Amino acid sequence: MIPARPSLDETDLPFMSADQKTSVAPTLTWVGDVDGHLRIIDQTLLPAQFREINLAEPEQVWEAIRALRVRGAPAIGVAAAYGLVLGLRGVANADRPAVERRVTEVADYLATSRPTAVNLFWALDRMRSVVPAHPQLSASELIARLLEEARRIEQEDCEMCAAIGRYGAELLADGSGVLTHCNAGSLATAGDGTALSVIYAAVRQGKRLHVYVDETRPLLQGAGLTSWELTQRGIPATLLCDSAAGWIMREGHVQAVVTGADRIAANGDAANKIGTYSVAVLAKQHKIPFFIAAPSSTFDLKLPDGRAIPIEERPEREVTDPFGRVTAPEGMRARNPAFDVTPAELITCLVTERGLIRPVTADAIRKVIGAAG
Amino acid sequence: MIPARPSLDETDLPFMSADQKTSVAPTLTWVGDVDGHLRIIDQTLLPAQFREINLAEPEQVWEAIRALRVRGAPAIGVAAAYGLVLGLRGVANADRPAVERRVTEVADYLATSRPTAVNLFWALDRMRSVVPAHPQLSASELIARLLEEARRIEQEDCEMCAAIGRYGAELLADGSGVLTHCNAGSLATAGDGTALSVIYAAVRQGKRLHVYVDETRPLLQGAGLTSWELTQRGIPATLLCDSAAGWIMREGHVQAVVTGADRIAANGDAANKIGTYSVAVLAKQHKIPFFIAAPSSTFDLKLPDGRAIPIEERPEREVTDPFGRVTAPEGMRARNPAFDVTPAELITCLVTERGLIRPVTADAIRKVIGAAG
Repeated sequence: MIPARPSLDETDLPFMSADQKTSVAPTLTWVGDVDGHLRIIDQTLLPAQFREINLAEPEQVWEAIRALRVRGAPAIGVAAAYGLVLGLRGVANADRPAVERRVTEVADYLATSRPTAVNLFWALDRMRSVVPAHPQLSASELIARLLEEARRIEQEDCEMCAAIGRYGAELLADGSGVLTHCNAGSLATAGDGTALSVIYAAVRQGKRLHVYVDETRPLLQGAGLTSWELTQRGIPATLLCDSAAGWIMREGHVQAVVTGADRIAANGDAANKIGTYSVAVLAKQHKIPFFIAAPSSTFDLKLPDGRAIPIEERPEREVTDPFGRVTAPEGMRARNPAFDVTPAELITCLVTERGLIRPVTADAIRKVIGAAG
Repeated sequence: MIPARPSLDETDLPFMSADQKTSVAPTLTWVGDVDGHLRIIDQTLLPAQFREINLAEPEQVWEAIRALRVRGAPAIGVAAAYGLVLGLRGVANADRPAVERRVTEVADYLATSRPTAVNLFWALDRMRSVVPAHPQLSASELIARLLEEARRIEQEDCEMCAAIGRYGAELLADGSGVLTHCNAGSLATAGDGTALSVIYAAVRQGKRLHVYVDETRPLLQGAGLTSWELTQRGIPATLLCDSAAGWIMREGHVQAVVTGADRIAANGDAANKIGTYSVAVLAKQHKIPFFIAAPSSTFDLKLPDGRAIPIEERPEREVTDPFGRVTAPEGMRARNPAFDVTPAELITCLVTERGLIRPVTADAIRKVIGAAG
């Protein structure tokens, strides 16, 4: 195991001013060529502080993924792919077998950063597969090819986000209030996000939207990350305690709900951040369409339905001791499921980079996702 | 205006140990006779610290109500009644007209502590009405009679809580999971509370219950106060983020929901802490009975339905800056309605000290509440 080390270099930037809002910093970006480095927004400091950090060693990427400085399944995958390239610097002048051994070593290492992140393994496996696919390349050519593969993973992620936005934008009418939960935005991907990409694309089409943001306890990704993305882009938005979403719907402010998903079963049951299921039930009660935006890679067609999706239970202290402050008495137990599963019948439409799926049925999913999946 | 002063005397107590759990400290208690003082639990320190403070001046009662050291409509009413008695010390040896003037002066003053608390005005008006009702009493006899009236208000509140518990307990089956929202417990009343009184009464009958406690953002009364009451009494309980309530229901853990109410209209629409409405919708989705426990004084039969109930909007910073920590970016707006209204059709039964009201209809309410109200 390679020990984690602190970041080499940090770039402090003040909050962007209003006239800078159109140029939003990317969540992650590769700076330079094969001897370059990865720059990421340190999301653990948002929204109080905007700081980009430069990662020049795989150990730093490992630590950034583990510490949630970079989070969101697609963004983690891209970060890990670049992290693998960073690990090859020391063998740039070695022979090809040394590079091959190092690819395996660094990929195995990076895979331990978040043991439940499927995209992490997927991206690293795709990087590994470059080696046997190109037996003719020299050591340095192989390294260059691996950087190219990481760039492709990033580029495909951007294209996925853009396609989801393109397909989903038609679902949002001009003048709508749109409620979202957690963060499925640019901070979770290399591009515009999934749920938020739908909103961004609609706004670019000139639609006037007002976004209602669930703060998303326990970790407050809605308050900290989604709010940050929306204010950076100047999109009108209002933050809510999760418990207020139902009443805001009842007041008539919400015409659509759009969230992301972490895993979608063959029948359309969708796991996402805890609280998504409650929002879906509330949307049904108010006859508000409920959309889930997620790439085809989120679908797990081996799982017949949501009952087969395991739900991670996170530490009780995220509930009882939020933000370093004890809010519950000693001895009080807590439940802290990280996800819940929204049944397909509550989902009006699934938005994927391959198109819209509606109504949400196993057949419709198989046609769009199963074909090339 | 009489300026607020800090408390004279404070009693530090450690957390109660397990063997003390059966003797739960009262939320407020009058210590001594006409020259006595009011002792309250300082609820702003819960759950981290259990501290009782002694209030010997009306200014201290005013400050305790304003600062939410004592909260909950019934408890505020009782505290204010005793606060009025505290204000009469300086006139104990004066003539009756001086006492009468002082009653008016102190009552007017205490009424400014929380300008929207209906129970506060009700209790103070009841105290004021003692004066014209007893023209024959001397100054010192009048003061003694006012203390007696405050004690009666407290005693009636205890009896109200007990009656609600007695009527409501039958609604909870042995072995049930019971979900509650916010705090409608002993900390909000002079007795056992309203919603929690139902739970306490059922537990005293030997029913084994497990209580699921919504943390209740933004002010976390569920995490801090309801959890504290339940752990003090050794009742099995689990804390949840508000957003997890739907999923915990879906998992099958909840067989009943019981909450309090702040105001109930003639048709049964009930205003309560923000998030109650969402819980009611979720209960309906899962076919779980939803009970509201509240005294007859909560009913406002002049209001035809919930649309006539004004909803207080509290400061945005309770959402954006919880617990002294900024969780949202600068410039992010927030909505923070303090209450929502649960429509009567989502309420399975209303539990009052005069009996159960089910189904919840204007006729049934008029029969139980309107008759003597």
